[in-house]
Amino acid sequence: MPPTVLIMVNAEIRIELKKGVADPEGANTKKALELLGFKGILGVKTVKVFSMELDMSAEEALAACEEMSRKLLANPVIQSYKIELK
Amino acid sequence: MPPTVLIMVNAEIRIELKKGVADPEGANTKKALELLGFKGILGVKTVKVFSMELDMSAEEALAACEEMSRKLLANPVIQSYKIELK
Repeated sequence: MPPTVLIMVNAEIRIELKKGVADPEGANTKKALELLGFKGILGVKTVKVFSMELDMSAEEALAACEEMSRKLLANPVIQSYKIELK
Repeated sequence: MPPTVLIMVNAEIRIELKKGVADPEGANTKKALELLGFKGILGVKTVKVFSMELDMSAEEALAACEEMSRKLLANPVIQSYKIELK
């Protein structure tokens, strides 16, 4: 039986809130940091990243991440996504 | 009165779970993706990123982000953090 070859790709899907969409967690983090005495904070945005190990080619990984983002990971109404192969 | 000069720095603080710490959200995301028919997913990790706009020099921003991470944003028992100036 031929040895099974594992082609491992690391991909990251970065999910951000679209411009104009409220980011309560970011706002609360900014407030908490200011209460701790930090100055000069103009804005805080929260970003979610899914870091994945995939057993497929780079090309397949890009296509799969695109589909995962559209089907499950990103809400198209309020979020945008970016895919990066590491 | 001299014009106030704004030195804006974009910094990102990336918070990851340490090796060996359970990532229920990552595990559930993997399961959900597999239920949707995606194959070849070896692992899914969730990463939190705080994207900040800071009115300070790059040097001050690095020091401030270090302190923000230690004081509020990262739980040293289960999380590690990385700081990146954009």
